[in-house]
Amino acid sequence: MIGTNPFDDDKLHEECGVFGIYNHEESAAHTVLGLHALQHRGQEAAGIVTFDGRNFHSHKSMGHVADNFNSQKVIESLPGMSAIGHVRYSTTGGSAMRNIQPLFADLSSGGFAVAHNGNLTNAWTLRKILVEKGAIFQSTSDSEVMIHLVATSTYTNLVDRVVDALRRIEGAYSVVALSQKKLIGARDPLGVRPLVLGKLSDDTYIFASETCALDIIGAEYIRDVEPGELIVIDADGLTSHHPFPAKKPRPCIFEHVYFSRPDSITNDRSVYEVRKNIGKELAKESTVEADLVIPVPDSGVPAAIGYAQQSGIPFELGIIRNHYVGRTFIEPSDQIRHLGVKLKHNANKAEIEGKSIVLIDDSIVRGTTSIKIVEMMRAAGAKEVHMRIASPPTTNSCFYGVDTPEKDKLLASRMSVEEMAKYIDADSLAFVSIDGLYRAVGETSRDSNSPQYCDACFSGDYPTPLTDEALGEDNKQFSFLTD
Amino acid sequence: MIGTNPFDDDKLHEECGVFGIYNHEESAAHTVLGLHALQHRGQEAAGIVTFDGRNFHSHKSMGHVADNFNSQKVIESLPGMSAIGHVRYSTTGGSAMRNIQPLFADLSSGGFAVAHNGNLTNAWTLRKILVEKGAIFQSTSDSEVMIHLVATSTYTNLVDRVVDALRRIEGAYSVVALSQKKLIGARDPLGVRPLVLGKLSDDTYIFASETCALDIIGAEYIRDVEPGELIVIDADGLTSHHPFPAKKPRPCIFEHVYFSRPDSITNDRSVYEVRKNIGKELAKESTVEADLVIPVPDSGVPAAIGYAQQSGIPFELGIIRNHYVGRTFIEPSDQIRHLGVKLKHNANKAEIEGKSIVLIDDSIVRGTTSIKIVEMMRAAGAKEVHMRIASPPTTNSCFYGVDTPEKDKLLASRMSVEEMAKYIDADSLAFVSIDGLYRAVGETSRDSNSPQYCDACFSGDYPTPLTDEALGEDNKQFSFLTD
Amino acid sequence: MIGTNPFDDDKLHEECGVFGIYNHEESAAHTVLGLHALQHRGQEAAGIVTFDGRNFHSHKSMGHVADNFNSQKVIESLPGMSAIGHVRYSTTGGSAMRNIQPLFADLSSGGFAVAHNGNLTNAWTLRKILVEKGAIFQSTSDSEVMIHLVATSTYTNLVDRVVDALRRIEGAYSVVALSQKKLIGARDPLGVRPLVLGKLSDDTYIFASETCALDIIGAEYIRDVEPGELIVIDADGLTSHHPFPAKKPRPCIFEHVYFSRPDSITNDRSVYEVRKNIGKELAKESTVEADLVIPVPDSGVPAAIGYAQQSGIPFELGIIRNHYVGRTFIEPSDQIRHLGVKLKHNANKAEIEGKSIVLIDDSIVRGTTSIKIVEMMRAAGAKEVHMRIASPPTTNSCFYGVDTPEKDKLLASRMSVEEMAKYIDADSLAFVSIDGLYRAVGETSRDSNSPQYCDACFSGDYPTPLTDEALGEDNKQFSFLTD
Amino acid sequence: MIGTNPFDDDKLHEECGVFGIYNHEESAAHTVLGLHALQHRGQEAAGIVTFDGRNFHSHKSMGHVADNFNSQKVIESLPGMSAIGHVRYSTTGGSAMRNIQPLFADLSSGGFAVAHNGNLTNAWTLRKILVEKGAIFQSTSDSEVMIHLVATSTYTNLVDRVVDALRRIEGAYSVVALSQKKLIGARDPLGVRPLVLGKLSDDTYIFASETCALDIIGAEYIRDVEPGELIVIDADGLTSHHPFPAKKPRPCIFEHVYFSRPDSITNDRSVYEVRKNIGKELAKESTVEADLVIPVPDSGVPAAIGYAQQSGIPFELGIIRNHYVGRTFIEPSDQIRHLGVKLKHNANKAEIEGKSIVLIDDSIVRGTTSIKIVEMMRAAGAKEVHMRIASPPTTNSCFYGVDTPEKDKLLASRMSVEEMAKYIDADSLAFVSIDGLYRAVGETSRDSNSPQYCDACFSGDYPTPLTDEALGEDNKQFSFLTD
Repeated sequence: MIGTNPFDDDKLHEECGVFGIYNHEESAAHTVLGLHALQHRGQEAAGIVTFDGRNFHSHKSMGHVADNFNSQKVIESLPGMSAIGHVRYSTTGGSAMRNIQPLFADLSSGGFAVAHNGNLTNAWTLRKILVEKGAIFQSTSDSEVMIHLVATSTYTNLVDRVVDALRRIEGAYSVVALSQKKLIGARDPLGVRPLVLGKLSDDTYIFASETCALDIIGAEYIRDVEPGELIVIDADGLTSHHPFPAKKPRPCIFEHVYFSRPDSITNDRSVYEVRKNIGKELAKESTVEADLVIPVPDSGVPAAIGYAQQSGIPFELGIIRNHYVGRTFIEPSDQIRHLGVKLKHNANKAEIEGKSIVLIDDSIVRGTTSIKIVEMMRAAGAKEVHMRIASPPTTNSCFYGVDTPEKDKLLASRMSVEEMAKYIDADSLAFVSIDGLYRAVGETSRDSNSPQYCDACFSGDYPTPLTDEALGEDNKQFSFLTD
Repeated sequence: MIGTNPFDDDKLHEECGVFGIYNHEESAAHTVLGLHALQHRGQEAAGIVTFDGRNFHSHKSMGHVADNFNSQKVIESLPGMSAIGHVRYSTTGGSAMRNIQPLFADLSSGGFAVAHNGNLTNAWTLRKILVEKGAIFQSTSDSEVMIHLVATSTYTNLVDRVVDALRRIEGAYSVVALSQKKLIGARDPLGVRPLVLGKLSDDTYIFASETCALDIIGAEYIRDVEPGELIVIDADGLTSHHPFPAKKPRPCIFEHVYFSRPDSITNDRSVYEVRKNIGKELAKESTVEADLVIPVPDSGVPAAIGYAQQSGIPFELGIIRNHYVGRTFIEPSDQIRHLGVKLKHNANKAEIEGKSIVLIDDSIVRGTTSIKIVEMMRAAGAKEVHMRIASPPTTNSCFYGVDTPEKDKLLASRMSVEEMAKYIDADSLAFVSIDGLYRAVGETSRDSNSPQYCDACFSGDYPTPLTDEALGEDNKQFSFLTD
Repeated sequence: MIGTNPFDDDKLHEECGVFGIYNHEESAAHTVLGLHALQHRGQEAAGIVTFDGRNFHSHKSMGHVADNFNSQKVIESLPGMSAIGHVRYSTTGGSAMRNIQPLFADLSSGGFAVAHNGNLTNAWTLRKILVEKGAIFQSTSDSEVMIHLVATSTYTNLVDRVVDALRRIEGAYSVVALSQKKLIGARDPLGVRPLVLGKLSDDTYIFASETCALDIIGAEYIRDVEPGELIVIDADGLTSHHPFPAKKPRPCIFEHVYFSRPDSITNDRSVYEVRKNIGKELAKESTVEADLVIPVPDSGVPAAIGYAQQSGIPFELGIIRNHYVGRTFIEPSDQIRHLGVKLKHNANKAEIEGKSIVLIDDSIVRGTTSIKIVEMMRAAGAKEVHMRIASPPTTNSCFYGVDTPEKDKLLASRMSVEEMAKYIDADSLAFVSIDGLYRAVGETSRDSNSPQYCDACFSGDYPTPLTDEALGEDNKQFSFLTD
Repeated sequence: MIGTNPFDDDKLHEECGVFGIYNHEESAAHTVLGLHALQHRGQEAAGIVTFDGRNFHSHKSMGHVADNFNSQKVIESLPGMSAIGHVRYSTTGGSAMRNIQPLFADLSSGGFAVAHNGNLTNAWTLRKILVEKGAIFQSTSDSEVMIHLVATSTYTNLVDRVVDALRRIEGAYSVVALSQKKLIGARDPLGVRPLVLGKLSDDTYIFASETCALDIIGAEYIRDVEPGELIVIDADGLTSHHPFPAKKPRPCIFEHVYFSRPDSITNDRSVYEVRKNIGKELAKESTVEADLVIPVPDSGVPAAIGYAQQSGIPFELGIIRNHYVGRTFIEPSDQIRHLGVKLKHNANKAEIEGKSIVLIDDSIVRGTTSIKIVEMMRAAGAKEVHMRIASPPTTNSCFYGVDTPEKDKLLASRMSVEEMAKYIDADSLAFVSIDGLYRAVGETSRDSNSPQYCDACFSGDYPTPLTDEALGEDNKQFSFLTD
């Protein structure tokens, strides 16, 4: 019902979700379910690779898991006791079939598949070096660098080769990998993107981006994979490695604001509770007299409940969502396009007419949706429209696996809060403060010397080097093959 | 966000929605939008017929409007200033393409298309008579009887022929029809199914099953088509006819409970407000001590808000819905099937653990979903689970255009409330009373001598003869052509 | 290999083929095979109706039999011991799914399906009368008139009703029909279109348009259905009826020239032998000195063999056909379109260079292909190009089930033979004489008082009234529904 | 019309055709046409890569060129002045999309695409070495070895790198390759597979497997690419290289027997003339008294014409082919399967009945078709059936790019000619002698010390080492990824 809004193109988009399972009769069916639970992390395409003890098997498809992995035929084409899977959102690399993960290579040591959530900040730099040595890339995805680094590593042991590869990359990654003998889960030293460990029985382990993927298959949540940790599962059980120098973790705080599902536990906290807390902080920081608190569905609902509970103003559904908006209305006819938000939402006019309302949304990106929602409320007869946002102003692009517009497309990078209020025609507008956000996740405030989270989209404070950004655009070119 | 739950097969299903527009440049595009807003009334198939001043044009498709009517090419294949459209749910007549409405006939007076919401209770009886006279039926739909009655009527004037046809049929119907000159909207004498009149400008009129279809195209809601009224729109404007003997109306009360969208105004009342009222009535009638009020998403939300407001118990989202469940998981692999409700819903465990909860749902049909939801709450650690239902026990089948299981599949026809509570493993179970329901729609109580609504599914009190039911099954056979 | 050229749009096109089988375990599979053998008679769409003793079943599809009826699933969806089938070419009625035959009606006497090869010349006239009585037409096909005439006949016995219907129609028809008890085959009094009777065993009878459909299933060819004969097959065996006044038959002579497959026996003559005979007649009538006889593939091959045998000039393959031209190159890109005939044919340059050649084709319609073929031969270095045509000049349209261009598009209706020779740039051009054609089918000459064949396309002598042609175009309008 | 029979699974199958064009506005459309003309060399899949001066573009598809490359949209997705293309038959590597050529790599020197006809006999051996160095293979095709050898070559100049790669491979190859600056055509030192050079204008060059692909676009045939020659086309025009030690060529003689189209000039000879010559040799070597010479369509036609001309026995079409047999009847229902050859062929009974016939076919592989054809002739009443084959007995597998059954499946490797005659139930059976075949291609006889052609399928005399064959099967394993 809430948490993420799959059909709104004025949102930041998580680019990937990953899942892996070791030692289960129904590894493929469980991976399908796990990916289905992670669908909000990437709706463009999905892929699964299994290993049956002898051969690897793969099925990849554009579109949703529920539409493309639901047949018995597909499940039967994926035999084996181990599997990894991936859902992805389209990235700059393009949307070709060959970019769908898991990526696979036939190494001299045998087959090796990998699925990656995150984004490498030195992928172009490494790719150039690899191509000069004769490597042939299958895709335009940054993730393929990893598999070539593993293939060309001079170590002989597979785990050593993976560690060797990870040491050379910069940026954000939560990775699951499958070889003929091992399932591997690894998280970058800062732990930017989430990854959790679960189990279904004594010797059936699972990796997943979020706990909701454990819930759907009835698996027990054990713990987060730690930042900088590499866990190997094989016939001997689980082994934990910490091959990187220790660093203070900085997980992505936007996972709490919007990306993760509200029923997930991320970085040891209930996402739903954090969002309600943000609503409560907002109510404290930006009080307003009003008749109703109305969430912008569906992602604004928990913060709106928190705001209503804190302020005592009644929570009402003032905007009704149409369940049947699919991918396909993304490219409608011209006649339909101008109707915009109406395809997805309708004002609950009987409630709104003549009322002062507080609208709660999770974030403002370009502002295109906010402008239409306020207009819809006014057309329905709202007396006053006060907008409250459950995150600080989004002013900077993300380079760690989130699809953000360029900086100058972000409304908050171009306007003050007052200008934004006027732009969206709200009677008032307020964002939760950065310290308010940190309080909602249980901190007393942001530690500005050494922030507890990656909050670069709000602060511009990037926790890793941005090596590729320093290259001129010309050095990022390669012979692009479109198909 | 709420109102109807498109993916739950343990619900009653409205079988159709209709839409018509007269005199607009973009009649097809507006009909697409109107049907999209009415999609919750029928998800199996949709069809549109337009008239361009010379020829009629048709496009029909299995599946959702947003998936099959969204291309410029389809819109361009439907030229003309007038259009009617239909969405349908599968019925006993089968799901063949030829059953998709609007139905069309080339009468001696010219082309005539008709779209029907409802169900005729003497269709078989009439069909038999018509076939004996040489009529050839295209479909297995009860609605086709209407068009044959119009075709074979001995009146010369089209409106007279339509009235002649409607006088011979029994049951529930809200109908829109299109000829070369006229757009017609008609509602049966009891007004069982809804139909509203709207306008976009002085001479652009619209008929629709619900007001939400007016909202999406920015049309003004004028009024309900009255029970027993036939409205004709043509170059001379609007003419109202009342060709039937006057009767006390009995609109379907379940439209308020579940079928209509919460943002619609049905029978002059806000559907959302009525549902909140039912929640309040429930809270008064069936008080319980608990920590949280939790809606079964999405249709239970308004009643849960009403219940929380009346009782003072906090409203929380204890069940999180997966947005990405599509039609396709309806036939999953065996491995996936046993997971049932988990594909759609997950417990928000962090909220529920250790709490006493009140679960609010709109109705209980077979009970299959209730049993799983309660189980899910208990697995998430709920201390006590109290179920409250925003309608009286559903004990009888509907013969007026709603897909209901046979009587003996309805849980409430087989068990007492206590037995049901035990069956679904709830600590307590209560339904709103029939008078509580009538209070929620603004009556003081049900008038048992002459009920204000059709409530046959709760009471067994059918307001029309059930002529076909009296036929033996053998007399309902015809040479069924399957394809 | 020869006989008909499926991909040439500069040919006359037979519009239909029919097939019926009574009393066989695999009636659907046999009908699929029969229609496959008749595919050259109609490539646009195909349909089958079966009866399983209780219900009728139907499968219809645009496209080829071999592409759309080849799966076990389709065969299984067509159970029953009796079946009829139809292949069709697109006609003026449009290519909608609902025009695909067999047509079906649920009469008061039970289900009734009909498949029709031919064309009725009073269909519009009858349709108008039927619609005024309240009949609703499903299709825009002339054939639907038949089924309505059966439905509204006042006779009680089915065979009587069919005869009653056939007596009212004019034009050409070979019909197979299926009821719950009977399989019926009927041919119009002139026998314009072919229809043969075969059997697989004592009580398993077959009707088919050509004997090649008997060969493919290993059935024995019994005899032609006679002109004006109606044969009924049921549990009592075969009954022959002659319900019409006797007339001298006039079967279509173009079946021998082009439509029928060369391996068929039509009107008691081998099609291949007749075509060779035409080639021999041509060689006698239009001698020429040349190095090689070259067929325009594939339909010119038998006449070319006859010509070569008679003249002693060697037969060579001077034009090579590409097997892989499919339906899809019918709408190619502009770049490809100008290449025209090259997609299908290539000159066998090594043979042609420096030679005088006699090109043999079956007919000239618009002349568009002839012009390109001659050009191709010259480009390949032919010294002289003499064109010989195995039919008389095609000067008139057909109204009996053959798709012909309008009269003024027919090259021979606009030009003399000399003008045509110049137009296509041939060194000489000759057509077989009308008497030469009659000699090839075994007559001594055409009996001009009472011709033995329908040769209206050559002579303009139409053997039936053309009632609909006398109607103004306005009287042929109806409310056309396009989809 | 003849030359290759696309639908017969009892034939040897050429595995590939290649095409390349340099410097033409419509390079993609011309490549589509060229591949269409080469479709008989590979029907499973097709691919094209173009270069637009900046980016490479690719379109690949399972199925026929005429079905999948015919839309304007596809052509527009392939911009650029240079293009290469490939058609392929399924090989042991499997039929996955990623095996469709041209293969592409982004080398350090820029994009590089390659299309290969032939088969490498040391591909596995090389692959193993490359993987050990860290190469990641995209496909299971032997051709991918080439592109990795180019990528990892230590030469800096692209042509040097290609030569370096070709020097390391063994087996048969005709290759076209495209870089940002150059179009390259190369043929192995023995010239096993054909490759010709053509031009459309002074600076627009074309490479193609056969001359028929030049004819379709109106290009001039210049000459064969010589065995061992590598031709580079770029802005400076054409440069010819001969980087390999000179060897006596041994082109595949089966191209003349069956693979090439009869309208092609292969190894400087008309394929059609050679086939007629074979027929004449057969008539001289294996005289028989008979009434008719009948070709097994379509590939037996030219030899049958030659046989008839030499023997004086009349040529007749005794077997009629159904044009509409598509790919899809390859997997029919069980009911249909037993009908076998009848789906494709029918006896022309009126010709055959009571006659002694000579059947001419191009080769016998497994014998499954021959057995059915003879049976069909007898069922049609043939008095005597004499089979004559236009090639010597096929006794050995091919390792040079032709799909042959394993040796023990070849009828001629298991039986003497007499045994075969009995097996297929022919009154007599004869094959052309190996010297007769050499005479038909213009030699006086086979030079057994140094044969002029590769005739390994008849002689077992393989002209290159079979390195991979020496590996055990275990050494040919890799981690196969199926999808």
